[in-house]
Amino acid sequence: MSLIVQKYGGSSVSDAESIKRVAKRIVETRKAGNEVVVAVSAMGDTTDELLDLAHAVTPMPAPRELDMLLSAGERISMALLAMAIKSLGHEARSFTGSQAGMITDARHGSARIVDVTPVRLREALDEGAIAIVAGFQGFNRDTKDITTLGRGGSDTTAVALAAALDADVCEIYTDVDGIFTADPRVVPKAKKIDRITSEEMLELAANGAKVLYIRAVEYARRHGVTLHVRSSFNNNEGTIVYNPSENPAEGLPTESENAVEEPLIAGVATDLGEAKITVVGVPDIPGKAAQIFNLVAKTGANIDMIVQNVSAASTGLTDISFTLPKTEGQTVLTALRADQSDVGFVGLQYDDQIGKLALVGAGMRTNAGVSARLFTALYEAGINIEMISTSEIRISVVTRADTINDALRVVHTAFGLDGDTEAVVHGGTGR
Amino acid sequence: MSLIVQKYGGSSVSDAESIKRVAKRIVETRKAGNEVVVAVSAMGDTTDELLDLAHAVTPMPAPRELDMLLSAGERISMALLAMAIKSLGHEARSFTGSQAGMITDARHGSARIVDVTPVRLREALDEGAIAIVAGFQGFNRDTKDITTLGRGGSDTTAVALAAALDADVCEIYTDVDGIFTADPRVVPKAKKIDRITSEEMLELAANGAKVLYIRAVEYARRHGVTLHVRSSFNNNEGTIVYNPSENPAEGLPTESENAVEEPLIAGVATDLGEAKITVVGVPDIPGKAAQIFNLVAKTGANIDMIVQNVSAASTGLTDISFTLPKTEGQTVLTALRADQSDVGFVGLQYDDQIGKLALVGAGMRTNAGVSARLFTALYEAGINIEMISTSEIRISVVTRADTINDALRVVHTAFGLDGDTEAVVHGGTGR
Repeated sequence: MSLIVQKYGGSSVSDAESIKRVAKRIVETRKAGNEVVVAVSAMGDTTDELLDLAHAVTPMPAPRELDMLLSAGERISMALLAMAIKSLGHEARSFTGSQAGMITDARHGSARIVDVTPVRLREALDEGAIAIVAGFQGFNRDTKDITTLGRGGSDTTAVALAAALDADVCEIYTDVDGIFTADPRVVPKAKKIDRITSEEMLELAANGAKVLYIRAVEYARRHGVTLHVRSSFNNNEGTIVYNPSENPAEGLPTESENAVEEPLIAGVATDLGEAKITVVGVPDIPGKAAQIFNLVAKTGANIDMIVQNVSAASTGLTDISFTLPKTEGQTVLTALRADQSDVGFVGLQYDDQIGKLALVGAGMRTNAGVSARLFTALYEAGINIEMISTSEIRISVVTRADTINDALRVVHTAFGLDGDTEAVVHGGTGR
Repeated sequence: MSLIVQKYGGSSVSDAESIKRVAKRIVETRKAGNEVVVAVSAMGDTTDELLDLAHAVTPMPAPRELDMLLSAGERISMALLAMAIKSLGHEARSFTGSQAGMITDARHGSARIVDVTPVRLREALDEGAIAIVAGFQGFNRDTKDITTLGRGGSDTTAVALAAALDADVCEIYTDVDGIFTADPRVVPKAKKIDRITSEEMLELAANGAKVLYIRAVEYARRHGVTLHVRSSFNNNEGTIVYNPSENPAEGLPTESENAVEEPLIAGVATDLGEAKITVVGVPDIPGKAAQIFNLVAKTGANIDMIVQNVSAASTGLTDISFTLPKTEGQTVLTALRADQSDVGFVGLQYDDQIGKLALVGAGMRTNAGVSARLFTALYEAGINIEMISTSEIRISVVTRADTINDALRVVHTAFGLDGDTEAVVHGGTGR
């Protein structure tokens, strides 16, 4: 008997009809002889509606109470899902994050999981029941308070349960067919990826692929959980995200066996959510970069790419550019301006009209010429590259925002990723 | 320092504005130097909306899951109320029924309180915080499941917390100014009652007065909790419900001191929610009534009045009539029909066009002539009495449903209850 953890996002349980449909799918999985644990998000826009209510009451809701409030969303969806399954004649029991043993630290709104003790889930499974767990929420042992995990929390709940219960697979249900080589809304010939390593998935997620949250992928990679990303609207196979070194999931080739066949490039991601800050005229003496990025770190901003130009020998000054989420731009600018005289730079430039494209593939490790092919494709399309950054399995470039979709299409074609048919695109996005 | 428990119903917290208004009132109570514990219902129609969702998913929702679902309603209102209070600069903490120590049996949907262990509330109060508790919900220790208390559950939560914390008073906030001598929508000259004994209140509640639930009054009476029923829309004094023997609340006269001044009649209640079943032609031999009411008891129906006519000696048959909630009528008729031949009665009559009027007053104990005055008033108004039932402090009569409002008005006048001015009537009803 296999143990399968399934996660259904808000768009999969947006109303009573969707909940009944999802209940049927869960029952089918159970009937096929599997033990089933389900992590479920709040219905449709419930979380946003609750946030609106909170902000109608006070502009700065207390974090403990906000978590208490938001946790009501999953409580509603999980109870409805459990009763829908029971009405189909199968035993089901719903559990809050606390009841499911999701123990977190006390950081309300973005709590980290510190332990998972799914004793009651194991009991329910042993009694033949399907366990329905509230995604996104946990419990702090010291304060005895309810916490929430923040964005992508339900994915993380599912992966953490899969790890703790030693599940065979963690199925992430969403409204698209899986992970694609590029966003199918921009590249109609994008292909669904059948298999991808968790390392590659991590790079894609970190660079703008929206289907999976980086945090859940990271948790899965660290705990050897195999993910299966698939649509809740059909029965198609989706995308397997696996960890080749630790967990060669049954039937899947390990990395070494597969090296020669492995596609050079797994996929291409783009991101329009970043801005670029350039610190102009920084004295080219040791310790200045450290000083700048210590200032930035204090704001809590998440820096992505960093580029330092060679200094012009005549002036003894250099420019340092970095990208970060647009939402964090003003905070960082303010922090830098406050210490301008201390650091001794000349000025600041802020640019939020940039786009980032990242080419990801484990095959890069053993293949030269990938950068050359990427730069050539962009050059031939007349697209200017403003910044470049690389990792072992990724190359990222920054271009003007309004050229990013063209860049995505030409790169997708240049690396032979185009499929023969157009991908079917569903609307909406899950949480 | 006094400890005050306050209960706010759904109509007092129907939207963000109401919640902010209630938060201000709570803060005023705290500023006046009191410790404050608040029991709050779900916002406005939330509970009904959740029930609708459940029934859209399945016609027969599993009771455990239905309780899990409904408990989300108070979770939302209590978190919003706590954050509203905090935004006014006062410390507040919300607690679920489980966190507040409301321990119940496992009867989902109508759980009974078996213990109250408000350890976390006491801690919060000792730290100077206002404790906000989800009304209506509890927790079963054996199953570790969430339960709900059923109709009037939030009133019961408030009273149970007041008893466990030895509160000085339990304030029940609603959308009317208190308990009236009669329903002010029917009797415009009905007067607000300043003080009423819990025994009288119990009779009024049991006979159709809607403001307080009989269960909460019973709990208050048994545990010596003084209630103050008042409006959340103004600062008027409401109605004090007190237990003269056990708890002569400060400033209130005890029963004996006050006996001569005590009004003869506390109030008049009416109820259109009952139906009458007459079992026609019952053999007038010992044990037949027991047989009939054992059958009825097995259905779980709540019988109210019972009348047996003297048998006509010539036939050896008698008729037995009783009233019960209309909602239970069909079940009881079915049960009786099934055993008709065994009991040996001739037939059944069902009448759901009846109204019940109850005159309640502890003064009746020592005053003759109350029934005579009641029957005379009804006779002079041309209203026919179909059934009569009495207790030590109550007389109830059944009339045709369409005469009940006239009956209420003439009785109210006959006993000198009419006030000089018309009562102000607010719309809506709380839960």
